[in-house]
Amino acid sequence: MTTGPNPADAEQLRQLLARFSHAFDNADAEALGEVFAVDGSIELARTGARFKGLEEIRAFSRDLGDESPDHQTVDSVFTVDPDGTVRGRSRYLAVLADGSVHNGDYFDTYTRTPDGWRIAHRRSVPRYPLARPAKGPLRGGLGVG
Amino acid sequence: MTTGPNPADAEQLRQLLARFSHAFDNADAEALGEVFAVDGSIELARTGARFKGLEEIRAFSRDLGDESPDHQTVDSVFTVDPDGTVRGRSRYLAVLADGSVHNGDYFDTYTRTPDGWRIAHRRSVPRYPLARPAKGPLRGGLGVG
Amino acid sequence: MTTGPNPADAEQLRQLLARFSHAFDNADAEALGEVFAVDGSIELARTGARFKGLEEIRAFSRDLGDESPDHQTVDSVFTVDPDGTVRGRSRYLAVLADGSVHNGDYFDTYTRTPDGWRIAHRRSVPRYPLARPAKGPLRGGLGVG
Repeated sequence: MTTGPNPADAEQLRQLLARFSHAFDNADAEALGEVFAVDGSIELARTGARFKGLEEIRAFSRDLGDESPDHQTVDSVFTVDPDGTVRGRSRYLAVLADGSVHNGDYFDTYTRTPDGWRIAHRRSVPRYPLARPAKGPLRGGLGVG
Repeated sequence: MTTGPNPADAEQLRQLLARFSHAFDNADAEALGEVFAVDGSIELARTGARFKGLEEIRAFSRDLGDESPDHQTVDSVFTVDPDGTVRGRSRYLAVLADGSVHNGDYFDTYTRTPDGWRIAHRRSVPRYPLARPAKGPLRGGLGVG
Repeated sequence: MTTGPNPADAEQLRQLLARFSHAFDNADAEALGEVFAVDGSIELARTGARFKGLEEIRAFSRDLGDESPDHQTVDSVFTVDPDGTVRGRSRYLAVLADGSVHNGDYFDTYTRTPDGWRIAHRRSVPRYPLARPAKGPLRGGLGVG
């Protein structure tokens, strides 16, 4: 069974996720130090790439260059495992330099440091657009009449 | 006159909306039971379609298949009517399997159960893209220079 | 050094940003009065346009017409300067009438009035799509495999 963090922690985690976008998308090395744990890591599910530790994450962000995708993070759910592990599951909306949009899931764990919450691990899993062509006509959903 | 829920309830409602996306878009029947009231309903404004009760909502989600749109929910405002009805108004951003984006409004009411907040009713109203062609050149807004 | 607002104020600021979208995108003159300070202002970085005072903002919203872009606001970080100035930095996702997406940054200051928080100043800075063609192939990021 899982429970959630208290409202004050939830608010701080929400702002941590927001600060990720501003720090990472602007390759702000100092701000990234306030987002990821020193031993934090990012794992890209599609390619299998891994970035281990704050310095590799800073280099990843910097090397993407000034036309890299922007990442927006929404629909975050925070839970606490029985052993105290704090998890977050979010949807990202990436906007590419040409205005095209990709989405996917972030599966995170967080760690509390004396300076505040940090991302300990992020696994990023793309959803759309499909890497393969769609099988048939695009289907509707809520409000896609 | 309307007032808002307290911050703890607002945080729980925000996470309820996030859990909708993860549950519905993955056709997770169990998780949908933690999102909608047993007698909850969804109404699609454009087509007039209605899904009444948790089982119809589960079937709707499942029948959309694995290339159905993903739904992201943002810009939620929560209010409480004088009679105690808790309402939410949000914007959705749907990403289709080909990466195209639709947006619209969710007009919700919520109900508090012994297991937490649930969606009692959702009316989904599409906004863009227009069903008809635009009347003229696309216009600017904030930051659409 | 900056600090953040307390959780109750953060929640109110978050809903203020949500109410901006619903009020501005629907040219709701009354609701805009609950979003912007009477002497509030909007500044568009790319064009240099400025809208000073609630009446100019109402006219701006109304004159955009019924096919103007919709604005969704996410990834908000709230900070308080040593002199008490409350700031917000957010990412916007604009959806145009044809379904195309633009993003950018909102740099805000807020003011607390007897009726609640209001936007005192908003500077809107576009990010993507680039006004110039991209320099090379679009690059990947998190989850853009």
